[in-house]
Amino acid sequence: METALGDFSGLNGMELIIDGWFHERGVMWPGQSMSLKVEEVLYHGRSLYQDVLFFRSSDHGNVLVLDGVIQVTERDEFAYQEMIAHIPMFSHPNPTRVLVIGGGDGGVLREVCRHKSVEKVVICEIDKDVIEKSKTYLPTLAKGYDDPRVEVKVMDGNVFMADNPGHFDVIITDSSDPIGPAAALFEAPFYRNMYAALREGGIICTQGECMWLHVDIIKPLISKVGEFATTVEYAYTTIPTYPSGQIGFVIATKGKEEGCKEPKRRDEEMEKVLNYYNGDIHKAAFVLPNFARRAIFE
Amino acid sequence: METALGDFSGLNGMELIIDGWFHERGVMWPGQSMSLKVEEVLYHGRSLYQDVLFFRSSDHGNVLVLDGVIQVTERDEFAYQEMIAHIPMFSHPNPTRVLVIGGGDGGVLREVCRHKSVEKVVICEIDKDVIEKSKTYLPTLAKGYDDPRVEVKVMDGNVFMADNPGHFDVIITDSSDPIGPAAALFEAPFYRNMYAALREGGIICTQGECMWLHVDIIKPLISKVGEFATTVEYAYTTIPTYPSGQIGFVIATKGKEEGCKEPKRRDEEMEKVLNYYNGDIHKAAFVLPNFARRAIFE
Repeated sequence: METALGDFSGLNGMELIIDGWFHERGVMWPGQSMSLKVEEVLYHGRSLYQDVLFFRSSDHGNVLVLDGVIQVTERDEFAYQEMIAHIPMFSHPNPTRVLVIGGGDGGVLREVCRHKSVEKVVICEIDKDVIEKSKTYLPTLAKGYDDPRVEVKVMDGNVFMADNPGHFDVIITDSSDPIGPAAALFEAPFYRNMYAALREGGIICTQGECMWLHVDIIKPLISKVGEFATTVEYAYTTIPTYPSGQIGFVIATKGKEEGCKEPKRRDEEMEKVLNYYNGDIHKAAFVLPNFARRAIFE
Repeated sequence: METALGDFSGLNGMELIIDGWFHERGVMWPGQSMSLKVEEVLYHGRSLYQDVLFFRSSDHGNVLVLDGVIQVTERDEFAYQEMIAHIPMFSHPNPTRVLVIGGGDGGVLREVCRHKSVEKVVICEIDKDVIEKSKTYLPTLAKGYDDPRVEVKVMDGNVFMADNPGHFDVIITDSSDPIGPAAALFEAPFYRNMYAALREGGIICTQGECMWLHVDIIKPLISKVGEFATTVEYAYTTIPTYPSGQIGFVIATKGKEEGCKEPKRRDEEMEKVLNYYNGDIHKAAFVLPNFARRAIFE
């Protein structure tokens, strides 16, 4: 018989803390596990949708864990938030209406609101507890909610989009993995709904899993989205506390033949305060290693 | 009192296997740990220089661990071997004489030998046990030793270089971390010795630690090497089983004002068989996120 350390399936966030370390295991990355040292558990509970854990780590700041999977650490979150937000935002010449689906911690809002062109940002986050608890335990992300252009909808993004066709310049889906509440967000129908909610010239950017682990998810998704989107591409960012240390983005456009590999504009003042994104790394993020390019696009 | 799971200091490779998982902890990445599931221990022993462990993992192929730190997994090793070898090799118009320091597993030799221009590759690996055991347990890397252009020297690279000034076109140092036998390889005197062993137009490429963890090592090293090298640059590759999922390279030139950011040549036939490197990712590897560029170069 294996001990709890050997078999983690079905354990909640608190049960994954053993001997002062949080151990992340998941069926989506068999045979490997990331552990972070815990200083103090800040909150643990079950929302309507998922197991929610916040802890203060020894070296990575405060950490948010949903259903046993690390979502955010204060130390490296910027690598994800900046790239998932600024790649589509800087690929658009003048984004004014933005929709964020998921992203309840507020980090994507924070980045989107740096753009002066933005007139309105709607966020559809289904789990109210993630929003409320992030305001307490991840204040440097949740400050994204403070901008007066932000409108919060605690609801299913699909329902909201059905009522707002042809409306948005940029739609960003910041979701957890396709197991649990976010499963439908990795299916072609969800991408069709996003596409319908875009204005002409609009851009979709979604959490697109890891090229080192999930080409079996990425390839069919890219293929299906390519059936209706004008372009569909894949870019990635490094981020140490996500499985295998990187995560990618599926980026699709409506009526934009050139795609998103080249930023449409640069903002030197903004780049001075950003910690990850710049116009050069925007371009570099689309350059895949051979194994990933072959597995996803060939 | 913390249990063995809480305090790993001083444990050997076998002692880091608990409940069927190998747990990598290190003072160079406090508060975080990577674990791999073990199917079978293949070898464990102490060489003249270090604790040596080979195991077969559940999902990452065979794994080499030195002094408790993962050096190679068969699943992702190509990301490291190809990038540390082909960035300097393709930055040189016609590399004929190559020196590898460390790299006892043979993986860098395998990549260097793909280049037809090469007439001779000398490898100086100080630990004979790593060479011999890699031939048994990492045969797809150790096949690098089969090429007739390879000459093996079981000795200190510093001693060999002192006898061969102005000789090499490319010198690659594939070392473990600067704790233990490789500590001296991260000091400026070692870089001066490599520089002296280069021909005019020659290139040095060394394991340069992780931008997410070790800018306190990288920045002073780059600064010191910049005092005598013509150019000194930093590039990186993604690699899931190294701490934080990436590792970098310090790349210096002798009499090459343009540096190494642009490959000097491309080889489409070779790119077809490589799994990571291509001419575009060569350029992208030098594009750093803002936090790393500022911390290392400003």
